Amino acid sequence: MERTDVNTLGEFGLIDHLTAGFENRQSTTVLGVGDDAAVIAGGDEQIVVSTDMLVEGIHFDFTYTPLKHLGYKSVIVNLSDICAMNARPQQITVSIALSNRFSVEALDEFYAGIKAACDQYGVDLVGGDTTSSNRGLIISVTAIGRAPAARITRRSGAKPGDLICITGSLGGAYLGLQLLEREKQVYLDNPDMQPDMGEYAPSLLARQLRPEARTDMVDTFAKEGIVPTSMIDISDGLASEIFHICKASGVGAVIEESGVPISNDAQLQALEFNLDPITCALSGGEDYELLFTIDPKDTEKIRFLPDIYIAGEIVAREDGVKLHTKGGNIHDIKAQGWNHFG
Amino acid sequence: MERTDVNTLGEFGLIDHLTAGFENRQSTTVLGVGDDAAVIAGGDEQIVVSTDMLVEGIHFDFTYTPLKHLGYKSVIVNLSDICAMNARPQQITVSIALSNRFSVEALDEFYAGIKAACDQYGVDLVGGDTTSSNRGLIISVTAIGRAPAARITRRSGAKPGDLICITGSLGGAYLGLQLLEREKQVYLDNPDMQPDMGEYAPSLLARQLRPEARTDMVDTFAKEGIVPTSMIDISDGLASEIFHICKASGVGAVIEESGVPISNDAQLQALEFNLDPITCALSGGEDYELLFTIDPKDTEKIRFLPDIYIAGEIVAREDGVKLHTKGGNIHDIKAQGWNHFG
Repeated sequence: MERTDVNTLGEFGLIDHLTAGFENRQSTTVLGVGDDAAVIAGGDEQIVVSTDMLVEGIHFDFTYTPLKHLGYKSVIVNLSDICAMNARPQQITVSIALSNRFSVEALDEFYAGIKAACDQYGVDLVGGDTTSSNRGLIISVTAIGRAPAARITRRSGAKPGDLICITGSLGGAYLGLQLLEREKQVYLDNPDMQPDMGEYAPSLLARQLRPEARTDMVDTFAKEGIVPTSMIDISDGLASEIFHICKASGVGAVIEESGVPISNDAQLQALEFNLDPITCALSGGEDYELLFTIDPKDTEKIRFLPDIYIAGEIVAREDGVKLHTKGGNIHDIKAQGWNHFG
Repeated sequence: MERTDVNTLGEFGLIDHLTAGFENRQSTTVLGVGDDAAVIAGGDEQIVVSTDMLVEGIHFDFTYTPLKHLGYKSVIVNLSDICAMNARPQQITVSIALSNRFSVEALDEFYAGIKAACDQYGVDLVGGDTTSSNRGLIISVTAIGRAPAARITRRSGAKPGDLICITGSLGGAYLGLQLLEREKQVYLDNPDMQPDMGEYAPSLLARQLRPEARTDMVDTFAKEGIVPTSMIDISDGLASEIFHICKASGVGAVIEESGVPISNDAQLQALEFNLDPITCALSGGEDYELLFTIDPKDTEKIRFLPDIYIAGEIVAREDGVKLHTKGGNIHDIKAQGWNHFG
């Protein structure tokens, strides 16, 4: 029998391959596989469902991830997907498989983080499953949200001329992870060494260990009467996400390096690591900010809103996906999602 | 720091412990943790959400589980939870974490099973997540269904005098598993031996490897104008499930051994294994039949329906949970869910 390694397809290619034969038959299925979340009919509002799985040793490392932070982040990554549909998260289910090295006290810490996220976002824990594993901890969270049908924002609505916008700032979570990995290595080399994270650490570690979901932006869009033409959350880095929008919308994009928001701490930490800050923003993941496009008629509505940055323009598909650097050069942007199978 | 082993609480005790501090705040949350599925508002109908996690080496063994059957069964166990709420399943999400020993061809087999279940039950695959694991395969499926509010059936509505009913037959899946485990042992002892499953194997292996969800019963209840007073699916064995209903409803129960449906093949296979058939029905899991209670006024509606068996009566809580044997004796029934942490 033929044996094709899953690496050959990549994560997104694999998903496309495995789900290719499926078709939707239920009249209540509004949107199936291929966006940040599925959409199903739900009365006055539509219901948005998203699910993510987190695996010890792949997505998190207990050397530097406190259990409470892990619980919090497990919820946030799913709420972020709901926000990316321009919907408000309302319920979650949490399933875990764990080996017997975890005590009840350890689980209490993890669930304290889940509860902190539920409290912070007003979300209800409504179900889940608890079972054992032979090794490590595996977490599967499903988030459910809702929004009026006319506000739901897919990846597929971007048009040439639309402005590309980014919330918050990028690259910080990636640089926080680099700091944690560096200090882990120092510790492994010499367990008597005290960690020295450096002066930019507080904000960068918070970005990595305690990210937030931009439900505030969903509220802002509603208040300002804006419906983005497309939206995605930035979990795998700006480069990967703009490619998803361009592919789903059948368009190209020009990102202005000068418009990509990067915090001072991230800029300075990147330089300390001899990394280019824009590379951290393009390829570093886990910021959980929103990348969205708006019709030019909404420019004045968006221009003075806090924490939203105009970072480029949608162009025709044949113009490709490009970065316009501060130095005036044009580079192709390469899609660089995390390949967990690599 | 204190360290309490998770075994000390048991699976259900652990879930109760971990979710104790959570409260529901969203007006759209109709029913949270503690039933077969959560219920959320959804317009004309309510939406029912259930999720299950399956772990290699805990819930399935690739020595005798074909990948296609595993895919099928992963869906069925979740559809069964939706049926247990008296709702119709309509959508699923499927998340998997897998080690690099799985090829694309192996995943194709697994997804062929997922698709066969979607085709059989008219359910849409609308989302999921695909990631890697350090070891083995972990599957997390979420099923979404819906039903009119007045038809949704919880575990908590049983009253003294209600009849206890069971669909299909019990014990077969457990005996199928025993056959597979026996032949695995024979094979491990001598790989040249050909498996000899015996004459009762076809029906019992089908029960174990290719269970079905009783969506037909949800349709039957609607057609006959019956709403059970309580319902649960039989995934962990009759004893465990009747305890869940009694605990949630604040009642006791008397099960009539003579009323518990057990197939001829299961009866004969049990005797060959020197097992008591009623023990297999009480403690064997994975039949995915429905256990439900009805108001005595519905007795005539239920009595002549195919594949539904009256197997006892709900009594006052202080009368406990008992088995009335064919020999006329009364025994306490002990709750015996699978303790995966044991």
